[in-house]
Amino acid sequence: MSSASTQGGLPLDHIGWSVGGGVRYLDQTQLPDAEVYRETADIDEMVEAIKMLRVRGAPLIGVSAAMGLAAAAAVEARNAQLTLEWFENAAARLAGARPTAVNLAWAIDRMRAAGRSAFTQRAGVNDVAATLHNEAQAIWDEDIAMCVAIGAAGTALVPRSATILTHCNAGALATGGMGTALAVIYRAHADGKEPSVVSTETRPLRQGARLTVWELHRAGIPVTAIVDSAAASFMAGGKIDCVITGADRIAANGDVANKIGTYGLAVLAKAHGIPFYVAAPLSTFDWTLASGDAIPIEERAGDEVAAAPGVPVRNPAFDVTPADLVSALITDRGVFRPPYAESLATVAAREASDVRRTVD
Amino acid sequence: MSSASTQGGLPLDHIGWSVGGGVRYLDQTQLPDAEVYRETADIDEMVEAIKMLRVRGAPLIGVSAAMGLAAAAAVEARNAQLTLEWFENAAARLAGARPTAVNLAWAIDRMRAAGRSAFTQRAGVNDVAATLHNEAQAIWDEDIAMCVAIGAAGTALVPRSATILTHCNAGALATGGMGTALAVIYRAHADGKEPSVVSTETRPLRQGARLTVWELHRAGIPVTAIVDSAAASFMAGGKIDCVITGADRIAANGDVANKIGTYGLAVLAKAHGIPFYVAAPLSTFDWTLASGDAIPIEERAGDEVAAAPGVPVRNPAFDVTPADLVSALITDRGVFRPPYAESLATVAAREASDVRRTVD
Repeated sequence: MSSASTQGGLPLDHIGWSVGGGVRYLDQTQLPDAEVYRETADIDEMVEAIKMLRVRGAPLIGVSAAMGLAAAAAVEARNAQLTLEWFENAAARLAGARPTAVNLAWAIDRMRAAGRSAFTQRAGVNDVAATLHNEAQAIWDEDIAMCVAIGAAGTALVPRSATILTHCNAGALATGGMGTALAVIYRAHADGKEPSVVSTETRPLRQGARLTVWELHRAGIPVTAIVDSAAASFMAGGKIDCVITGADRIAANGDVANKIGTYGLAVLAKAHGIPFYVAAPLSTFDWTLASGDAIPIEERAGDEVAAAPGVPVRNPAFDVTPADLVSALITDRGVFRPPYAESLATVAAREASDVRRTVD
Repeated sequence: MSSASTQGGLPLDHIGWSVGGGVRYLDQTQLPDAEVYRETADIDEMVEAIKMLRVRGAPLIGVSAAMGLAAAAAVEARNAQLTLEWFENAAARLAGARPTAVNLAWAIDRMRAAGRSAFTQRAGVNDVAATLHNEAQAIWDEDIAMCVAIGAAGTALVPRSATILTHCNAGALATGGMGTALAVIYRAHADGKEPSVVSTETRPLRQGARLTVWELHRAGIPVTAIVDSAAASFMAGGKIDCVITGADRIAANGDVANKIGTYGLAVLAKAHGIPFYVAAPLSTFDWTLASGDAIPIEERAGDEVAAAPGVPVRNPAFDVTPADLVSALITDRGVFRPPYAESLATVAAREASDVRRTVD
């Protein structure tokens, strides 16, 4: 089991292997009221955990599903019952847990490839199980490394004793590692820069007040919660040195789709002369989209807002921030500055064939 | 009992006289889940209604307390028990129900003056009761007229088929009449201009999603609820024609203190080229304050935001919008345009001696 340390890229023990070889995960549905850790090596239980959002955040879902598949396969192997048929069935059930999360399908595809290859080589069941364990560990390790790289790239942008405004949860809880936006803050903290954070509540689902605030507080980083609409007066009062958010999808020109409210924060940051940064792995870039206009915006159920009965609710989950409001893009391949079409050109060409979405 | 009609200045029956001569009021704590009307001619019950926010909004508190005092006095008169001692005691109990709401003290002071005068003239108890009823009715009538005047002044600013963004509740439910910001919308609706409204939720206490949305929907005015942080993307999408909010206090230079989030909406409106209007009676102006810097900002309890345990919350209830972001001030004495120091000079001189706060 990994220890909680920002040095190793893991500020939380929210995901890991249990002592018995199962998957140990923090039940995020119970945050912040209770810290309930669950352990499982059962496919149905892991499917349920993903469906019920006990683990959430696209990268974390992928990591958890891969680890769950490996853990369950190890149990089958110990019972000498690990077969290709069982494996294919288990992989399919996990992949179907949340069909919209692209990382889930991607992670399970990697596990399928590793497992099929091992079975094809007529390896013993223990060797197949070991192969699956190693592949799941590799997926997790790569996610941790992605977060560490974002933190390393972004820390130079954080002044000493800065107060950083963030929105929603682009933290450890959304990934297998240190998060994306919060990776920058964890790294600045580890570098001794003593950052403080102001976290928006993030209506309607309150990921800021429930999750971001919880994980930063636990990591010993000073954090204060405010309602979303208080951000402007905090900026006007000179209390915010920079804004860092995550991203759901980034177009080739640098336009950013992220949690509803991000665009407003970017406009407000510009009006107050405050740098506005977006932190995300390269895998969040959608090179097939010329601009943010083409990014589809998910509209969620109105009952999340709970208005008076009979009244229509518009509940877009995301908005699009034009690239010209983004001071820099902090990625696992370094920091990019505007004009993004130019600064991103080389990686865009290299990555154009590998399009997938990541952080929610 | 007044009928619900925007023509008469009353879109709702949320306050009025009951058939038996008591006060009939809508219990706002139960909105929007249930419409519960209560009737009382009892001082303790009216004090409780004010304390428990069953009636809220500074103007409405003043109106309700005056009507409650008159109704209870009428009962005493019918029982031939109406004395100056009872009256002074009842007035004091009502005035103490919410000591911070200036309108309450102001309304009770008016009632005290009318009552003492009647007792001094050694009028019969029925005459005293009639005097008190008339004074309460006058306070209510003036509040209705104030709202009507704001609506009449503001309707010219509302284009046909406009979509208007509003924040918090500056509506009928906060006054004895049509409200302030919403008075403009009710009047534009009555004028056949077919306005639509987008109401923010207004965290943390949700007055937008609970109250504004409820009263507009009930009045047949199309209204849609959004979370506070969605306002920016609605502006960017060309969906908002103007913003109208109320005000808690306005400085002599036109700086506006209002519900937290108002300032951010004003910045966003300017960035999108959308007019930003503030509607308030002249009594909301504090001529003793040169600018908004001097307006004290109430910080409310952090538990309204409900962040993770142990995490500090900053919960300012108001923010200050600089006058240069306000396209016009819509008042019961007409519309004022920048520069406000000049346009307000005449009324400022006239009103300087009559300083008091109104709408919450």
